[in-house]
Amino acid sequence: MSDRKIPPQRRAVTRADVARYAGVSTAVVSYVINKGPKPVAPQTAARVREAIDLLNYQPNINAQALRRGTTEMIGLVLSDPSNPFFTEFAAAIGGEAFGYGHALVIAAAGGTIDTEATLIEDLVRRQVDGLIVASVSARPDLLIRRLNRNIPIVWIDAPGAVPGYASVGCDGRRAAAMAVEHLTGVHNHGTVGVVVGGVDSPSGDPRERGWEQALRSAGLEQGPIARVDWSRDGGYEGGHRLLSLRNPPTAIFASSDLQAVGLLRAAHERGLRVPEDLAVVAFDGTKESEFCWPPLTVVAQPIAEMARTAVRLVLDHSKPQSYEQFVGELVIRQSCGCQRA
Amino acid sequence: MSDRKIPPQRRAVTRADVARYAGVSTAVVSYVINKGPKPVAPQTAARVREAIDLLNYQPNINAQALRRGTTEMIGLVLSDPSNPFFTEFAAAIGGEAFGYGHALVIAAAGGTIDTEATLIEDLVRRQVDGLIVASVSARPDLLIRRLNRNIPIVWIDAPGAVPGYASVGCDGRRAAAMAVEHLTGVHNHGTVGVVVGGVDSPSGDPRERGWEQALRSAGLEQGPIARVDWSRDGGYEGGHRLLSLRNPPTAIFASSDLQAVGLLRAAHERGLRVPEDLAVVAFDGTKESEFCWPPLTVVAQPIAEMARTAVRLVLDHSKPQSYEQFVGELVIRQSCGCQRA
Repeated sequence: MSDRKIPPQRRAVTRADVARYAGVSTAVVSYVINKGPKPVAPQTAARVREAIDLLNYQPNINAQALRRGTTEMIGLVLSDPSNPFFTEFAAAIGGEAFGYGHALVIAAAGGTIDTEATLIEDLVRRQVDGLIVASVSARPDLLIRRLNRNIPIVWIDAPGAVPGYASVGCDGRRAAAMAVEHLTGVHNHGTVGVVVGGVDSPSGDPRERGWEQALRSAGLEQGPIARVDWSRDGGYEGGHRLLSLRNPPTAIFASSDLQAVGLLRAAHERGLRVPEDLAVVAFDGTKESEFCWPPLTVVAQPIAEMARTAVRLVLDHSKPQSYEQFVGELVIRQSCGCQRA
Repeated sequence: MSDRKIPPQRRAVTRADVARYAGVSTAVVSYVINKGPKPVAPQTAARVREAIDLLNYQPNINAQALRRGTTEMIGLVLSDPSNPFFTEFAAAIGGEAFGYGHALVIAAAGGTIDTEATLIEDLVRRQVDGLIVASVSARPDLLIRRLNRNIPIVWIDAPGAVPGYASVGCDGRRAAAMAVEHLTGVHNHGTVGVVVGGVDSPSGDPRERGWEQALRSAGLEQGPIARVDWSRDGGYEGGHRLLSLRNPPTAIFASSDLQAVGLLRAAHERGLRVPEDLAVVAFDGTKESEFCWPPLTVVAQPIAEMARTAVRLVLDHSKPQSYEQFVGELVIRQSCGCQRA
């Protein structure tokens, strides 16, 4: 953080102003606001409330936070705010948090572990009641070393359990297998490629393993793999790579909506018709997947349910070490070949 | 907000713990942390810092906020978090705020003035240092009545000046005129329709007026209008409406990227080729506009500059009543006909 100069705030109306205006002590103002601990005569209380309205007094939530030991804020660290999957997820988390009277402080990390660590430290300093973290890293332990263990933390978009922490994720292996089984079983494709993220993951992403597994179960040979960024640009690059092979696949599973959108662009540029010349199934189920051309058949993640679970876990902290795994749902549109455009 | 029960936080390490561990008074711990006001002997200071590290003590930023009169937080109210233009804008604002040592508390309103008002009141109670608001309403005065005037407020995505407030916006009239002049001047279209938002705005959106003005300047008759939601669904509906006319336009200006994406889907469904059968120019310049099919020619809003200006205005509050207007930039891609797919 820089130390550019910030001018002081204008003076806010205080409890003392209200007390002076109403002709009572500051303690009486507190009793009226907090409905106790001591009773206040109805006429006096009415005078205090009138003063509060007239002066537009806002009780200082930070002072209340200090007394009560809660800031009523949840911190959310987003590794990739440019991905609509995460912004849709963040909006759902914000709505859930608000339902519990909590505000959401969102910190956007923009893709590096160092920035994530800095942002997490900043949120911890702000004494948020808990943290929800979507990390770029497939290895949260790299981040965890630096964390204050006094704050409940829930990992979202987690491919698996995070030892010592609560986490929420969607079963990527199973989702990928569902997508590929649809392409091989219903549409009889014999060569299914994959455009997948996890370039820096030594064991490959679970979605890649689900794709492998589905092909094996169907008695098919492995198809071609493009490991690329989790982005439209990544999908575009991976698409061109697979489609320029001597024997290009007739179907591709893309491991995120964004990658599928990039892949579609590559297919269009090569003059391929989707689904006639190339079938595509993606994973995520964002609004964009419904409106790209052709509309994508996807395995949709249950964003609303996952958001509800993450907020509950971070606030009640009842299962500090559980892994809550969700299953995606196949949503049929046009890119697989079920419905012609 | 509900009053569902929230369990108390685990006990945090306090300044007293640090003092006890280091064998000094709590005042000395403060002097070390705040580098003053009194000097501390180097050996003692080293012992205090060691204790801080060992106990992982985090100074309470809320207590500091009370003393200094700043929470180092900026509140952002987003009317439509489902629109990538706003999430890209929010990410840019977050980055700027962080550069000043401020966190961003984001509240997503989801489209009604009542929710916006509630969220704004919540942020004010949290004593944020300032508010940045993107309102659904073309009439911020409806919201302003309820606002605490002690907090600096900056309106973003503002179509014009907001009396009594600082505001930031992009010249929609000029952007629309640029888009339409490109369609009539460079591509010689004689009938240019418009898919535009502002259904509830009595005078029409500035983008609609820019479209009218450009047609008038070119000596052309008015084209058909579809006033719809600022969404993909709105653009889809508006597209079908214009394209099913007896004499459909050969070119359409869409007043947002999202509406253009919906319009493209409608065109594809009707078997129209873009740009051969229908030329399209949109407004916003989000990443999605680059990756839909065909890639959209757009007038791009200068999101980074607008974010920088909004954060500066809300923090230094030097121009509490200015309107900072930006101009969009024409980005040529394929949907207008300049580059064939």
